[in-house]
Amino acid sequence: MIVGIDVGGTKASALLVDAESAAVVDRERASSVEDGPALVAALATLVAALWDRSPEPVEAVGLGIAGLADQAGTVTWSPNLPGAVGHPVGPDLEQTVGLSVTVGNDALAATLAEARFGAGRNCDDLALVTLGTGIGGGFVLGGRLHRGAHGFSGEPGHMVVNAAGPVHLSGHRGPWEHYASGSALGRLGSEAATTGAFDRGVALAGSPNGVTGFHVVEAMADGDPQAAAVFDQWCTEVARGVANLVVLLDLSRVVLGGGLADVGEPLRYGVATALAGLVPGADSRPPVEVVLAELGPDAGAIGAALLAVDPG
Amino acid sequence: MIVGIDVGGTKASALLVDAESAAVVDRERASSVEDGPALVAALATLVAALWDRSPEPVEAVGLGIAGLADQAGTVTWSPNLPGAVGHPVGPDLEQTVGLSVTVGNDALAATLAEARFGAGRNCDDLALVTLGTGIGGGFVLGGRLHRGAHGFSGEPGHMVVNAAGPVHLSGHRGPWEHYASGSALGRLGSEAATTGAFDRGVALAGSPNGVTGFHVVEAMADGDPQAAAVFDQWCTEVARGVANLVVLLDLSRVVLGGGLADVGEPLRYGVATALAGLVPGADSRPPVEVVLAELGPDAGAIGAALLAVDPG
Repeated sequence: MIVGIDVGGTKASALLVDAESAAVVDRERASSVEDGPALVAALATLVAALWDRSPEPVEAVGLGIAGLADQAGTVTWSPNLPGAVGHPVGPDLEQTVGLSVTVGNDALAATLAEARFGAGRNCDDLALVTLGTGIGGGFVLGGRLHRGAHGFSGEPGHMVVNAAGPVHLSGHRGPWEHYASGSALGRLGSEAATTGAFDRGVALAGSPNGVTGFHVVEAMADGDPQAAAVFDQWCTEVARGVANLVVLLDLSRVVLGGGLADVGEPLRYGVATALAGLVPGADSRPPVEVVLAELGPDAGAIGAALLAVDPG
Repeated sequence: MIVGIDVGGTKASALLVDAESAAVVDRERASSVEDGPALVAALATLVAALWDRSPEPVEAVGLGIAGLADQAGTVTWSPNLPGAVGHPVGPDLEQTVGLSVTVGNDALAATLAEARFGAGRNCDDLALVTLGTGIGGGFVLGGRLHRGAHGFSGEPGHMVVNAAGPVHLSGHRGPWEHYASGSALGRLGSEAATTGAFDRGVALAGSPNGVTGFHVVEAMADGDPQAAAVFDQWCTEVARGVANLVVLLDLSRVVLGGGLADVGEPLRYGVATALAGLVPGADSRPPVEVVLAELGPDAGAIGAALLAVDPG
């Protein structure tokens, strides 16, 4: 048994995972704390709780963090966990719980999980694209998890797709996640509502400015054609970035995950359809498979457990 | 000895290469012909000429083609060699010359050559970016040449960096090569000349419309500050695409090749300087090395020879 923990900015989600099957046997959750020592103490409590209830010995712990850690397990960069930066979270937790601890990026962990046990099985060249508040993801290339020179591959949301676009939170103009994240879906919905092109959104949200991605998705599920038009427009923005990944890396499959993957087939169909028109030379290459992620919000923690036993 | 041939749209450049050292022992050149059987005959003549003069037996032949071939050596896609599409160039040449023939993409071949014997030595995660009429390139990721699902990785010039930009030859809006190829340098120079911001260019070209990238480079070499300003602007466009590659793949080195690499240090310095301001989180990551390619226009043919003996 392995404990995998997805350490995000607001919560830490710990799973007891059977490393052979990736089956989730048990789970615990805690609020994330920003201070390094307090974070280690909270993670140790999660490990202890799962260990106590585990039917078999726990062999190792994997942490997937929203940020970057060096080989030794010290967090070196993490906008969501600023208090943990510079802290040797891996070694500290190792000493506290008496188990080997591996630390990796949460997007890499989720990619590994989908590749081994989810929608990325039996594919050597794929991207996982997670569509949530922002856009995250990772790559399997030539059959291997791609980590990059510093373990920091997997920030596709920062890829610039519109150099003349508005300045984003990152300080750079026109990154993909400005156009194709869940937040962007809300902005498109709100803009449509303002021009009278999304009446159901106004009814749901109370005002055009209040429209979010959730309202677009809800109205679309009810069959509202205006919501469907907004969603289609957003799918094209998703596909635009996916086309870049395909052109650069000659991928054969793209796995769509994150909170927006809950939309299901309309998302898959919308992105696949737009993608066909956006990949240069699409007539001359085999079509790219567009599929939905299978592991849901557990992917990060399952992948963290896998990182502890499988270098990818 | 291996014969490596770079098969472009207008010429085929054949090298006799020592596979151990990648030393170029001899060379032959022919005009490319578009018809499949005639192309094979021309390539066979090149092989025979080099073989006749070779001090040691020729063991194999590698072809780097501007386009795509399947595993068997049939050209499946090539805008520059339309008459060869569908023709089994590899097997035909194999039968004609009696040697094993490997067929691969020319950009992949050049990437392999720079990685093994040029500016990409001792680096596990790098991109070669060739700046010429268009933009080509390839990746070494995790220490291995990245081929992609269909051997078609390495089309970075088609990456969209300005979705609101003008429609390019590819039929898509705002690809990187529209802004950062050698052709784009000429356009920027011509635009500057039209507004009176590049007088030396007008003097060299005879008219603002006649200004090309060559005039910008020539005037810059003469110390013209207006040419340097145009070149700086272009280096920023190059760096914008490079930043995307770095963010996506966590590269530690970028090798600049193609005809524009002849500019030398001003190119390297200009791109490296602009890149520092364009990579998100640049303060938190080790800087990316920006270096010039070392193998010059021979890289494609040397790499083709290497493909015949080294899968990369």
